[in-house]
Amino acid sequence: MNNRLVTFLPAGVKVEVEPGTDLLTAAGKANIEIKAPCGGDGTCGKCAVRIKSGNVKARRDSHLATRIAEKGFNLACQTLVQDEDLVVEIPKTSSMSKHQVLGENASVGAGVSDALSNYLLHVWQLKELLLEQQKSPLNGYPLNPLCRRVRLTLPVANLQDNRDDLNRLTMALKKEIKCTDIHVPLSIIQKLGEILRVDQFKVTVLLSEVSGKVEIIAVEPGHGHQPLYGIAVDIGTTTVVAYLLDLEKGRVIDTAGTHNRQARFGDDVISRIVYAVEEPDGLKTVHQSIIGTINTLIMDLLVKQRHIKETDIRVMMTAGNTTMAHLFLGINPKFIRLEPYIPTANFYPVVKAQELGLRVNPDALVFSYASVASYVGGDIVSGTLFTGMGNEDAPISLLIDIGTNGEMVLGAGDWLVTCSCSAGPAFEGSGILFGMRAMHGAIERMQIDPQTYEVAYTTINNGKAIGICGSGLIDCLAKLKSTGIIDRAGKFQTSLPTERMRIGETGPEFVLVWREDTDINRDIVICEADVKNLLRAKGAVFAGIRTLLNVVGFELESIENIYVAGGFGNYLNIPDAIAIGLLPDIPVEKYKYVGNTSAKGACMALLSQEAWQEANNLAGKLTYIELSVGNLFMDEFISSLFIPHTDLTLFPNVGL
Amino acid sequence: MNNRLVTFLPAGVKVEVEPGTDLLTAAGKANIEIKAPCGGDGTCGKCAVRIKSGNVKARRDSHLATRIAEKGFNLACQTLVQDEDLVVEIPKTSSMSKHQVLGENASVGAGVSDALSNYLLHVWQLKELLLEQQKSPLNGYPLNPLCRRVRLTLPVANLQDNRDDLNRLTMALKKEIKCTDIHVPLSIIQKLGEILRVDQFKVTVLLSEVSGKVEIIAVEPGHGHQPLYGIAVDIGTTTVVAYLLDLEKGRVIDTAGTHNRQARFGDDVISRIVYAVEEPDGLKTVHQSIIGTINTLIMDLLVKQRHIKETDIRVMMTAGNTTMAHLFLGINPKFIRLEPYIPTANFYPVVKAQELGLRVNPDALVFSYASVASYVGGDIVSGTLFTGMGNEDAPISLLIDIGTNGEMVLGAGDWLVTCSCSAGPAFEGSGILFGMRAMHGAIERMQIDPQTYEVAYTTINNGKAIGICGSGLIDCLAKLKSTGIIDRAGKFQTSLPTERMRIGETGPEFVLVWREDTDINRDIVICEADVKNLLRAKGAVFAGIRTLLNVVGFELESIENIYVAGGFGNYLNIPDAIAIGLLPDIPVEKYKYVGNTSAKGACMALLSQEAWQEANNLAGKLTYIELSVGNLFMDEFISSLFIPHTDLTLFPNVGL
Repeated sequence: MNNRLVTFLPAGVKVEVEPGTDLLTAAGKANIEIKAPCGGDGTCGKCAVRIKSGNVKARRDSHLATRIAEKGFNLACQTLVQDEDLVVEIPKTSSMSKHQVLGENASVGAGVSDALSNYLLHVWQLKELLLEQQKSPLNGYPLNPLCRRVRLTLPVANLQDNRDDLNRLTMALKKEIKCTDIHVPLSIIQKLGEILRVDQFKVTVLLSEVSGKVEIIAVEPGHGHQPLYGIAVDIGTTTVVAYLLDLEKGRVIDTAGTHNRQARFGDDVISRIVYAVEEPDGLKTVHQSIIGTINTLIMDLLVKQRHIKETDIRVMMTAGNTTMAHLFLGINPKFIRLEPYIPTANFYPVVKAQELGLRVNPDALVFSYASVASYVGGDIVSGTLFTGMGNEDAPISLLIDIGTNGEMVLGAGDWLVTCSCSAGPAFEGSGILFGMRAMHGAIERMQIDPQTYEVAYTTINNGKAIGICGSGLIDCLAKLKSTGIIDRAGKFQTSLPTERMRIGETGPEFVLVWREDTDINRDIVICEADVKNLLRAKGAVFAGIRTLLNVVGFELESIENIYVAGGFGNYLNIPDAIAIGLLPDIPVEKYKYVGNTSAKGACMALLSQEAWQEANNLAGKLTYIELSVGNLFMDEFISSLFIPHTDLTLFPNVGL
Repeated sequence: MNNRLVTFLPAGVKVEVEPGTDLLTAAGKANIEIKAPCGGDGTCGKCAVRIKSGNVKARRDSHLATRIAEKGFNLACQTLVQDEDLVVEIPKTSSMSKHQVLGENASVGAGVSDALSNYLLHVWQLKELLLEQQKSPLNGYPLNPLCRRVRLTLPVANLQDNRDDLNRLTMALKKEIKCTDIHVPLSIIQKLGEILRVDQFKVTVLLSEVSGKVEIIAVEPGHGHQPLYGIAVDIGTTTVVAYLLDLEKGRVIDTAGTHNRQARFGDDVISRIVYAVEEPDGLKTVHQSIIGTINTLIMDLLVKQRHIKETDIRVMMTAGNTTMAHLFLGINPKFIRLEPYIPTANFYPVVKAQELGLRVNPDALVFSYASVASYVGGDIVSGTLFTGMGNEDAPISLLIDIGTNGEMVLGAGDWLVTCSCSAGPAFEGSGILFGMRAMHGAIERMQIDPQTYEVAYTTINNGKAIGICGSGLIDCLAKLKSTGIIDRAGKFQTSLPTERMRIGETGPEFVLVWREDTDINRDIVICEADVKNLLRAKGAVFAGIRTLLNVVGFELESIENIYVAGGFGNYLNIPDAIAIGLLPDIPVEKYKYVGNTSAKGACMALLSQEAWQEANNLAGKLTYIELSVGNLFMDEFISSLFIPHTDLTLFPNVGL
């Protein structure tokens, strides 16, 4: 093969690819993440790059490609490497990592730049997560981790007691921990003879005990203090966060987060499924992509905590939505997206780390949170566990997790109903002209002066603005409405006396930040299509809540607690979210920010067998309501496409 | 590396090796088996080869090497490749395969010569095994194979019944076969979604059900007639035999046998353990060697039965001694040979074929017969199952399996005692000047004229004699004694009036076959050292029998049946074996040849869950008697070193 060298600026990362390869794929191969919410279909326009040298060819002509080309850019997904080496510049707006942050740390080599830049990016966010999680990772459950240490002194073998080593071990273990069903993997049996004899038949067994079944994770010589660590991972469609846990002390040591590398196959689960199902070796590629993402986090954590070795990690717990769980385990996700939306599995087998290629102890056990249905996954079960909604004495509560999808659980103790509404990823910035994730430079709070229409805003990290994230979009929508810039249906009042209101390429738009105040050298605007997308997203969530209530015959007023979970839960302005009709109009004090409950529940399950058992109980107990059956949801949805709603009696406290 | 080319004649097989490699290792690399009972220590002299061209160097000088060199030979294990390419001739006497047999089949290429020549070698023996085994492979147990087919019609998924695929499958299965504990491996879950939908949720499940635990082996679309085959393997230290079974019809289809390729690491289990423990990567090498041997057999079987594919083999069962079981599973065998002789495991985990690299369906389950102790293995448990000695109404019986070791089981129904006596491999030809295994050209029957001392003999396949195998050696010893050539202590009467009696290199020897009647161009003789070795071997077996009887307080007369098992069981002359004091002097009609009971029991267990459960019961029930504890065995052994014994009242019917 006559491969060509592609150099990506500004990082300077080089990669060899075959002629005919598109630049999005080439970047993926170089572990550089370019935005591609449409999954490389050439329809979203987010992957614009600039060819600095070398010739390229377009995959096909399109209106969008032409418009982008007029500005001197090419769509990475539509641009093919030809017979020359290339130098390609990735503008900040197209990159998922902010290389200038990395620039502050001159000692970091290009090889790890991506992982580290992601890490640095998230530092501010992760610190908060870490502090919060360190407070009480067990959340009331007893410390009884999924891997524990049992010290045994076996009778020394002799001619009178010549039982085989395995029998000697399992008999002693049964006596010590009163269990009947012990599984010792072949890899451990293979070395057992030597291990028993290093310290005169004194050994330490590391094991996992779930519902009376014992799985041996390691047998090590002597009664030393074998390290006992675990990693809990929240596998989000967008962001993956890992916690390093000291299983013995029951505490969180550190955390690391990064983008899910699968993002290059599309922003939402549907694009990922399509890629996995339709591309050659697609499933393998998408599977390895999440394994690689998690391995990067493990590497990050172990670089920071140098006293802990890969082999010291004995157990892992993951929580993610159903598609993420399938892809993590390499299970074909095809039927998740086809009616009647059936996942291959809701309860997942416990596997060994080496089966998946995870960079921890090869014999480590990997647990996956059970799902409920195709669009209510282990992350929601994990969140339900965290809130205690399934506890006997729990009051009627609602858990809302707004991420790429909007999932919710309603219930109290014995009864729990759940659904997922296709809110779409608008609140994660997708489908919004200047939408972005909650990263450095994202607008997260906003005020609009009702007289002058001037905009005041704050950004994450106080960086120069480069876009607007979920919490900023909710603020923005509320303020556009309250200042009369848009009406209840989301239509722009184009006659306002401000130059911020203008007609852009796609129709009416409102300038939020002028070019000179941005870090992207363009005006940041919100347009009518953006507003429509946001209305659909918020409408879907509210319609979901109403449908669940309807199914069980309760009113909004019955709800005692609303738990707001998910990535932006901590930064959400509740009154604004009520004002736009995203959340129900009940007293603000009933709302509780619960943050990343998926990650928190994963930590709990790793630290407590009781929590893990309850998690599995919950997965069985949650009753899934399929919103596409019947007209209930669709009627509610249509009524929710206004600000705040067609039925204003539902929002008595929202001033119009 | 500057490798040298070594060409082995007569097969013409070439191999590249580094200078400094010994020729035994080089031959091993070329998959050519040279005899090396001493394991390459340079002490047995069986690996003599002739250097046709190229220079070599001796590892070290020794008396033996010098003697061999005088005859124009070099010891392969002591001869090192230097800086030239070599051509090396392997004489028939050193080869484990008979290339002249192969010569009859001119179309066979050199690449498969070894496997095929082994196969051809065994054809005569295997045919008998096959016919015998085809008669009644179940031996009274019900046909209920370890892999069976369950056809399910699952409810078709829809929006009202949106259970996940895995749940849908396991619920239907539980209903169909009334079980609770079902394990579906990840590899099957990964593809399950597609499989259920190929034929509208009609599937066929192949599964194994043991003690209420169900392991799914395959899920295939539709209600077709999925092939259902299994392979049972007897892993002997010397010979490995595989049976291809039709699990559905409960019958043996075909069989194949070959030498255990581990033979190049030594003839007996001790040499194999030493190699595994002391050589770099020794365990891996020895492990892969047996896997390779079995894969050759599988290939042989599938070449002969072209309608059966690798993937059609769903389950395997192996039976072998404890060391073989350890090496087969890659378990460190180190402590088997060190006092107090503890195996790492007696009960072995069920593993997937792909974990071991066996060339059958990767998801096939591989079962291993449980052992009893370091020197009483699964082959004996298998034999005990076959004889029915553990059945409720069984009379007092004795099972004797004389192979490389001599193992025996004594008992009736509830009580079964067992021991292993280090008989040594004399009856397999090792340690005997012209000893050989039961192969083409081996003397298997013998008469000596008491007047003329002329020898009449028959050989296997009626080939020209090249050596003498176990049954021939027993005949020989009996006749040497009955004709007065040796006395009760095994000492030669050197003054006999025949030129067959002479003083050879090692002392007195008796010529059995004159050079011109052999196929090796040398006189075939038996010497005093040979006789001593045979006396030790037969003495150990008889002493073992006496010790077992002593332990349980019974006399020889109490024994109702003696089952004679093992490779040479079918060809053994019982009266001669009694005459030399190998077997007890009880009526010949109480003796029953049972052949290769290890292989037969393996077939039974594969075809019947009930048989497999009973095999595991037996392994737990067999009480192991360690002969090295106390003086009982040693006293008996010393008394048994005469022909037939010091206590002649034990052999009332043996004429002296």
